[in-house]
Amino acid sequence: MNDKTINAIAKSLVPENYLALAQDARQEREKLVRVLLAKKKIPLEGWSEPMVEYLISELAMLDSNNFTSRCGVGEREGRVVCDLVRRRHYNFAHGIGRSGNLTDAQPKAAGSTIMANLTNSLVRDLIRTVGVPTCSDAIVVPMATGMTVMLTLRAIHIRKPKSKFVLWSRVDQQSCFKSILAAGLTPIVIDSLLAPECYRASEAGNGATVQFATDLAAFEAKISEVGAEQICCLVSTTSCFAPRSSDDVIALAKLSTKHDIPHVVNNAYGLQSSFLCHQLDQGSRVGRIDAFIQSTDKNLLVPVGGAIVAGFDSTTVDGVARLYPGRASGSQSLDVLLTLLTLGVRGYQDLTKERKKLRQFLQDGLGDLAQSHGERILSCHNPISIAMTLETFKMESGRLELIGSMLQKRGVSGCRVVTTSDSKTIDGHTFAAWGAHSSMARVPYLTSSAALGITREEIANFLKKLDEVLRKYRIKYVAQ
Amino acid sequence: MNDKTINAIAKSLVPENYLALAQDARQEREKLVRVLLAKKKIPLEGWSEPMVEYLISELAMLDSNNFTSRCGVGEREGRVVCDLVRRRHYNFAHGIGRSGNLTDAQPKAAGSTIMANLTNSLVRDLIRTVGVPTCSDAIVVPMATGMTVMLTLRAIHIRKPKSKFVLWSRVDQQSCFKSILAAGLTPIVIDSLLAPECYRASEAGNGATVQFATDLAAFEAKISEVGAEQICCLVSTTSCFAPRSSDDVIALAKLSTKHDIPHVVNNAYGLQSSFLCHQLDQGSRVGRIDAFIQSTDKNLLVPVGGAIVAGFDSTTVDGVARLYPGRASGSQSLDVLLTLLTLGVRGYQDLTKERKKLRQFLQDGLGDLAQSHGERILSCHNPISIAMTLETFKMESGRLELIGSMLQKRGVSGCRVVTTSDSKTIDGHTFAAWGAHSSMARVPYLTSSAALGITREEIANFLKKLDEVLRKYRIKYVAQ
Amino acid sequence: MNDKTINAIAKSLVPENYLALAQDARQEREKLVRVLLAKKKIPLEGWSEPMVEYLISELAMLDSNNFTSRCGVGEREGRVVCDLVRRRHYNFAHGIGRSGNLTDAQPKAAGSTIMANLTNSLVRDLIRTVGVPTCSDAIVVPMATGMTVMLTLRAIHIRKPKSKFVLWSRVDQQSCFKSILAAGLTPIVIDSLLAPECYRASEAGNGATVQFATDLAAFEAKISEVGAEQICCLVSTTSCFAPRSSDDVIALAKLSTKHDIPHVVNNAYGLQSSFLCHQLDQGSRVGRIDAFIQSTDKNLLVPVGGAIVAGFDSTTVDGVARLYPGRASGSQSLDVLLTLLTLGVRGYQDLTKERKKLRQFLQDGLGDLAQSHGERILSCHNPISIAMTLETFKMESGRLELIGSMLQKRGVSGCRVVTTSDSKTIDGHTFAAWGAHSSMARVPYLTSSAALGITREEIANFLKKLDEVLRKYRIKYVAQ
Amino acid sequence: MNDKTINAIAKSLVPENYLALAQDARQEREKLVRVLLAKKKIPLEGWSEPMVEYLISELAMLDSNNFTSRCGVGEREGRVVCDLVRRRHYNFAHGIGRSGNLTDAQPKAAGSTIMANLTNSLVRDLIRTVGVPTCSDAIVVPMATGMTVMLTLRAIHIRKPKSKFVLWSRVDQQSCFKSILAAGLTPIVIDSLLAPECYRASEAGNGATVQFATDLAAFEAKISEVGAEQICCLVSTTSCFAPRSSDDVIALAKLSTKHDIPHVVNNAYGLQSSFLCHQLDQGSRVGRIDAFIQSTDKNLLVPVGGAIVAGFDSTTVDGVARLYPGRASGSQSLDVLLTLLTLGVRGYQDLTKERKKLRQFLQDGLGDLAQSHGERILSCHNPISIAMTLETFKMESGRLELIGSMLQKRGVSGCRVVTTSDSKTIDGHTFAAWGAHSSMARVPYLTSSAALGITREEIANFLKKLDEVLRKYRIKYVAQ
Repeated sequence: MNDKTINAIAKSLVPENYLALAQDARQEREKLVRVLLAKKKIPLEGWSEPMVEYLISELAMLDSNNFTSRCGVGEREGRVVCDLVRRRHYNFAHGIGRSGNLTDAQPKAAGSTIMANLTNSLVRDLIRTVGVPTCSDAIVVPMATGMTVMLTLRAIHIRKPKSKFVLWSRVDQQSCFKSILAAGLTPIVIDSLLAPECYRASEAGNGATVQFATDLAAFEAKISEVGAEQICCLVSTTSCFAPRSSDDVIALAKLSTKHDIPHVVNNAYGLQSSFLCHQLDQGSRVGRIDAFIQSTDKNLLVPVGGAIVAGFDSTTVDGVARLYPGRASGSQSLDVLLTLLTLGVRGYQDLTKERKKLRQFLQDGLGDLAQSHGERILSCHNPISIAMTLETFKMESGRLELIGSMLQKRGVSGCRVVTTSDSKTIDGHTFAAWGAHSSMARVPYLTSSAALGITREEIANFLKKLDEVLRKYRIKYVAQ
Repeated sequence: MNDKTINAIAKSLVPENYLALAQDARQEREKLVRVLLAKKKIPLEGWSEPMVEYLISELAMLDSNNFTSRCGVGEREGRVVCDLVRRRHYNFAHGIGRSGNLTDAQPKAAGSTIMANLTNSLVRDLIRTVGVPTCSDAIVVPMATGMTVMLTLRAIHIRKPKSKFVLWSRVDQQSCFKSILAAGLTPIVIDSLLAPECYRASEAGNGATVQFATDLAAFEAKISEVGAEQICCLVSTTSCFAPRSSDDVIALAKLSTKHDIPHVVNNAYGLQSSFLCHQLDQGSRVGRIDAFIQSTDKNLLVPVGGAIVAGFDSTTVDGVARLYPGRASGSQSLDVLLTLLTLGVRGYQDLTKERKKLRQFLQDGLGDLAQSHGERILSCHNPISIAMTLETFKMESGRLELIGSMLQKRGVSGCRVVTTSDSKTIDGHTFAAWGAHSSMARVPYLTSSAALGITREEIANFLKKLDEVLRKYRIKYVAQ
Repeated sequence: MNDKTINAIAKSLVPENYLALAQDARQEREKLVRVLLAKKKIPLEGWSEPMVEYLISELAMLDSNNFTSRCGVGEREGRVVCDLVRRRHYNFAHGIGRSGNLTDAQPKAAGSTIMANLTNSLVRDLIRTVGVPTCSDAIVVPMATGMTVMLTLRAIHIRKPKSKFVLWSRVDQQSCFKSILAAGLTPIVIDSLLAPECYRASEAGNGATVQFATDLAAFEAKISEVGAEQICCLVSTTSCFAPRSSDDVIALAKLSTKHDIPHVVNNAYGLQSSFLCHQLDQGSRVGRIDAFIQSTDKNLLVPVGGAIVAGFDSTTVDGVARLYPGRASGSQSLDVLLTLLTLGVRGYQDLTKERKKLRQFLQDGLGDLAQSHGERILSCHNPISIAMTLETFKMESGRLELIGSMLQKRGVSGCRVVTTSDSKTIDGHTFAAWGAHSSMARVPYLTSSAALGITREEIANFLKKLDEVLRKYRIKYVAQ
Repeated sequence: MNDKTINAIAKSLVPENYLALAQDARQEREKLVRVLLAKKKIPLEGWSEPMVEYLISELAMLDSNNFTSRCGVGEREGRVVCDLVRRRHYNFAHGIGRSGNLTDAQPKAAGSTIMANLTNSLVRDLIRTVGVPTCSDAIVVPMATGMTVMLTLRAIHIRKPKSKFVLWSRVDQQSCFKSILAAGLTPIVIDSLLAPECYRASEAGNGATVQFATDLAAFEAKISEVGAEQICCLVSTTSCFAPRSSDDVIALAKLSTKHDIPHVVNNAYGLQSSFLCHQLDQGSRVGRIDAFIQSTDKNLLVPVGGAIVAGFDSTTVDGVARLYPGRASGSQSLDVLLTLLTLGVRGYQDLTKERKKLRQFLQDGLGDLAQSHGERILSCHNPISIAMTLETFKMESGRLELIGSMLQKRGVSGCRVVTTSDSKTIDGHTFAAWGAHSSMARVPYLTSSAALGITREEIANFLKKLDEVLRKYRIKYVAQ
């Protein structure tokens, strides 16, 4: 209600002095909203639910589908026939962007436009806050990471239309590899570097931690072999499963500058780690990162469906926005906006601090457990994920994968067993030792992660169940 | 958002001309809200859901529990610990009224105060619109009809503290009778008048319809016998199950004036009938009606829990409000407000018109069915409910109640079978021919109603199932 | 979905082994529900929102208004016309109770019936858990405390119809006093006992704390004077504003037994204090407590609107349920159920423990503040509320009430200033020194409470603002 | 609750016979759910909201993030930190698909998997029902139409990696054209055919309606010129703005077969027209349509964000699903599922019938209005959109576009004014007479549409406002 309406409230409905107290509180609230809309930064303290919903409802009412007298004779008028659907979208219906550009304003939808642009600003603010202060541009793309990497590759390819190849430091998740194929480009896979103990069974773990997964020499060699002008871009990865460490983003950024080859970083769930953020920031200072891409679900704890494309100048981010044909879902931006306003800067920082603490808790717990089973933690430099060897469980008769399914039956999800003896073929490309990120890997292991939002209780339960499963497995398949 | 906030929206978030279109729409919406809060009348056309929720949210934010900076050191601060509860009450928590009066404003809760008072105004507007233009006061009481009748009787008794009795025209629903007992008063039951054919089996139905259920002579006699000063009030009933007709509210209103005895009308579900409303209006013009009470659930299709006390001057309505000790639930007022704003005057009128049409459809259908089974419709003057005889089904061996449970098993609810051979004792008072409203009733029957919100499909289904049940029953229990 | 439905899921929709994992989780959830419905006790750990809503939705679907094929020909069929209303009541519409009894089952509403009865059981379980293990019966009444006290008095009066008086230990909140009047009974007010320093200004505070507020001698004297058979019941109060302490429930319980007079305890917000609960429990062991009544809002942090009547045998609780005429709102029971399932035993205990801690924090803070202003904390034995003197602020020229409104303007709610120089007349009864619970009180003071749900931040803010206000007030009105 | 749980309900909570009635109703509901999950077809009659939410909640609880005891040590565990977000997604968080395929089942998310696959089945059922009975496969893609066309082109290109061009029958909406560019392909634009009167001003409108917009001869010529093997595919459009008609899908399908060139149809909002559906069906019978793509928002009245890829064999639909890298949002599938269950077949048919009726109403109204202003309706064969000439308004001094903005200010959205004198350049391609679909178009006009969900009131308002605007415009700019 605007002030004129407040003043129109019949005196018979409420005494003026009571209303005056409420008006003071209204002014205070309006001020918070005003600061947000003017500064476009995440509030320090999170907002209450009613406060968040207040803003969202007000924005939605700026869209033409919510005007009290509408008269729509176009082919798309934001009509929603199912009430359940309308409600869950807070009356937003027009999506975001226009046919020309993902970040363009829609004349019919001032509210959706503000919502999407505000979200982009807040996301940039978040990235700057958590450790990438040099970030200049960021947008929420309403497609998950894989599809967004694909679109980014296409946006880069348009600037380098003759190029054919993507140099990619191997990481064994299908999604990123498929993004390259889906973009119509040809991936050149460079094996990851792991700690020596990953290649040789029963090696004592006091060996060298491998700081980064990137085989820089192989990159250099491939660039020489193929020719820089044939290479659309380099793709590196930060967050990944141990024992793979992050790629050496800084070194690759320098390589990128040296050869004038674009460089895209798959930072899938890296925003939650200040270490990984710092790599990006440093990379951009000493070399070239055209864009770094991360999921909204893993970094902001929203449902799967969105990704953030960010960069250190506007070229690639804008290029992605401009390439996106047609309109897009606003649902992912809305999730992000609701979450950032609810958490506030403080809330997000609390989440990341807690995660870091629990990462140590998991590390300690797994270390003890490994020792008690005659195994060890594989050395690597991974701020999220931990790998524990399964060497003493590897028997001709047994099947290590069973450990995974035994855990799953006990309610453990996300623990991966890697035998290093499997290979996988994706669209014609064969990956030896699939899962281990390097064709040379020989030591079987399992990985587990302390990702954003995990609880101490979950970790404690996991350790208990893992111990139980390993004991059972040993008795049944190994101990004879 | 107030205008100052709108103007603070960063130009980088949305172009000014797009926002200008939205601002026009906002002004239009604000105007609707302003008219409502100034005139306090139901809008002609119902509001959309987002519009209704907009108003409700804005009101809730005027309550102190929703202020962004709160500091509560009282014993009741409107804190709600469970989010599900908070949400379902739209962030309202303080209830309505104060210890002194159900309609008093709360300093901590300007929004709840407006909400409750606005609802009362709209309810009065509704009553005037549907056929009682002389109604001067109405309040929603957050207790169902029975408890509200009890409170009303107590409010009247306080003005006449020596009185002991309530003269009550019998209607066979426990609730009203128990209200009198709960109020600490002694009911004097006056048998209802029914059409002669209700007393004598197999009578042809072309006999006289009984216009009203009130045995006026018996009322007069009792007043003489007991003494007017001993009688706290007369209680009459409008809406009821056929073959009982409405009480003769007009004649009783005159009697009330004549003997200076207060007169309370139980208009339980009478607002939905323009005929019954008209009786009340006329009664107030030619005689005395201190208050008429109706449920919110049956007349406004909200969940059970509230009632409306209305009157033709403020004495009794205010008396009830003042008697109510302590604070009260605002939940019932909120339901009524949400409903009236959503329906609008037009929506409520559509409901009542449709009901009237479907009442005729039921009447015709039951008439045909009765004829085909050798039964008849009992003559009476009841705008909602219809009674069909079951004379040919009454056998020594059988139990007519089975017809009721057979219907229930087939998904029919609300159809009552009255054998007239049962009696019931409530707190020491015995009612012969329980269910039939008169101790003289002899003809068994079943009743069904076309009440607000019923659908044509329900009636058609009911007629089909009733026919099926009667056939089965006859074959099994009668036909041998 | 029942098991048959799960098994009917087309294999083309999901692989069997994935569904099997989900089925295991379903069984686990079903078990929790089963235990709840069989044992009828609050779960130790609170349930998640989806879990709570799952149960509530399932219960609602047992009500006839939610049957897929309905055919309602009664006058009340639980129809809800406004979707917003329907949703906020989780599709419940039939209310609770029947015309005969608040706890009776409704044939049309098996779900509502379970919901209400389960809530009653859980509430009894809560009362037993928090300190009244001897409690045998408890029901949620969908009316706030005042109206519920009134109904309880009426239920007791029905067993003692010749009695006229209620002996009431004075506590200066209108609601309870008005309940007695509304019930048609005559209150006899017994002044509360306060610490001597409350009667005499500037008394050093090392005087005796008054353990209880009850003037037992005056009670005894009044009983002799009026005659036990004339007295409907004794009404005592536990939770109240300092410097009044709780009544001596144990002594009154003995008195009640001795003279065979019913005894009702107004335990308004006493469930949150283990000390007050203990008094009730002991009282019931050594004497007589017919019923104790508490609000749902203050003790369970739900919106205003409900109360709990509890007792040590079923007589009075059942009497209240049976007296209640007609059906009743189920909204209050639903709020309580949602809250208790969400909190669990653990969650409620956390709330009460935190409150106790914060009570000490407030006590310490106010003590320091009092000292710095030359005031003191009034000695009493009140586990929730604290009174601080305002003696040095009392000037002929000034008006102490201003302190209250200055606080209110700064967002402080619930802080009461008592001058002891005002008197108030309610329905013909005059209370000298209104607000102070005793006509003899002379020392002005302000009270504040650490009630359930208060936060440390609120108290800190309050202390800061109070200090600021007192300084300003002194400069303006006192310091000259 | 499963049957075992129902049976565990304590008898003290509800009488068995009441529960038995509810159990019957439960069985009935379960049967509806079972039929849906087994047959995977849209129910004939739409479901009630509680029924729809029941199914959705049950499905969500099959996902691991909603298991009561979870233990997630992966990097993505479906955690949602903001309650508002969690609620609006009905507790779904895992998205749909796996890294390998958009339609793959997720082990962690059996419920999401069922949800997505069920939606796909229902969508196929819908397409078959509304006029394309030969449709064999359909999937909901969580990207709007433009991006989905792009992905489809890429999926086709993978099968024909050497091809470079897309032959496209011009339609002046940026989105489709940009899709071709974004896919990395080169569009070859074939001017649309319009009725001769569109090319020559003031032509009497009794000229020939142009049945279809496709210049078949030009297509043939281009294929010869470029070579079939160089052409990735033909792209045709059905639904579009008048005076462009649908492309001749049938003839193009034959051409496609003849030259063995894939054929993609942009059926953006064509599902709502039985005529356009019929073209597709016939096209698939006599020729080749590899895929037809339509938006979910325009055809199903959900918020913008999703599209449907459908086909007559599984090749292309599966190809798109397999190409999609990584996981995807389930939000769009959920919207579609909620909508289809709520509408039922009947509800959707009612919508399309009503639309057809209102299309006639708009046609008649515009015809009358055109006549009164000395204008005419441009002849074409377009089942949704209508174009009215603006020849008499075209003046050297005036700017026809003003008519558009004058309408917009009056709350009319979606009415486009085409001057035919503007040209537009998109990524290097220039379109003469932009907006008119043909570089030869010369007659200015405005278009309006009767699209799904439009109301009679909107059309009546539009006609009134258009009349008003044209009068004002003539007076100001033309009449001098």
